[in-house]
Amino acid sequence: MTGTERTDTRQAIMEATYRALCEHGYAALTMQDIADELDKSKSLLHYHFDTKEDLLVAFIEFLLEEFEEKRAENAEAPPEKRLEEFVDWFVFAPEEDDRTAFHIALLELRSQAPYTEAYREQLARSDRLVRETIVEIVEAGIESGEFRSDVDPESIARLVFATMDGARIRQATLAEAGYAAAVRDALYEYVLDDIVSAE
Amino acid sequence: MTGTERTDTRQAIMEATYRALCEHGYAALTMQDIADELDKSKSLLHYHFDTKEDLLVAFIEFLLEEFEEKRAENAEAPPEKRLEEFVDWFVFAPEEDDRTAFHIALLELRSQAPYTEAYREQLARSDRLVRETIVEIVEAGIESGEFRSDVDPESIARLVFATMDGARIRQATLAEAGYAAAVRDALYEYVLDDIVSAE
Repeated sequence: MTGTERTDTRQAIMEATYRALCEHGYAALTMQDIADELDKSKSLLHYHFDTKEDLLVAFIEFLLEEFEEKRAENAEAPPEKRLEEFVDWFVFAPEEDDRTAFHIALLELRSQAPYTEAYREQLARSDRLVRETIVEIVEAGIESGEFRSDVDPESIARLVFATMDGARIRQATLAEAGYAAAVRDALYEYVLDDIVSAE
Repeated sequence: MTGTERTDTRQAIMEATYRALCEHGYAALTMQDIADELDKSKSLLHYHFDTKEDLLVAFIEFLLEEFEEKRAENAEAPPEKRLEEFVDWFVFAPEEDDRTAFHIALLELRSQAPYTEAYREQLARSDRLVRETIVEIVEAGIESGEFRSDVDPESIARLVFATMDGARIRQATLAEAGYAAAVRDALYEYVLDDIVSAE
């Protein structure tokens, strides 16, 4: 198998895992469900991953790599724009059924973290990575003079991440349209508008 | 059975459910686990509740009643103090194992809301009740002149609730000490200090 084929196989498995999570949720998900989405035999999956947990750890890894790629692509954009894109990333419309289903599945997985150390480790990495990204954006904004310089980037990062994570979870579990967008608007009104308007 | 006995039985079942959720989580929880905590037969439980879902819907109802009682008790306290107590209610220390375990179990249950309409209804009620409580506190603070009068209580309620819910979930799933307290401090620094200091 060449390197490219390995990459293609991995990409295909990860995409099938995404679709299977949207379709079945996390708790009910089986390796067979993922094999069905992949249109391959379950034994191919088991050749790469011993258990559903192993596959999902690799899946979170895959999501983090995608997040890092996007972060690198956006690194040169204006900080205000980057912050807006970051916050908007948590907002989805109720008609985006797949995104709702996917976030519910991720929440199921997160609720298993206390019982599964490998999930806990990946989630801790994800937490650090996301917060570092916000810190980087705020620091860039302070440096360029676009953001107020008397804010603590680390505190802003915690606040923005907890707020938008909470908003997304509440929207997905309550199936209430516009919940995340309303929280985003309040976050801008009471926190971010004041920070990004340095001039 | 007298009314008092019915109330005592209900109280005992709810307390046993709390302990069983802390011990076993939600997904793995059985009616037998709750009967064991209650030190009664499973048939007594089934006399009151047909399924685990029915019992847990009643359990959320019980939590909401407790929340409403506490809200009524505090209604006369100064708004600034009420707001502080409300926000602190989401913060727990890492050594509070039971609270961590309980919040994980509730998160598991919340992740099942899309599949269980009765959970969804109770969670929607809970969402309204909690947000109404924050609105009530902010309105009382505006009326008494202690809070800034140019804020929208509904927006503040959404922001505070999503932020502290997200903070609590992140602390419980990441098992990271002090996460919720750090978010609370950031929320005060960037939002609430400015609102409660009307003078």
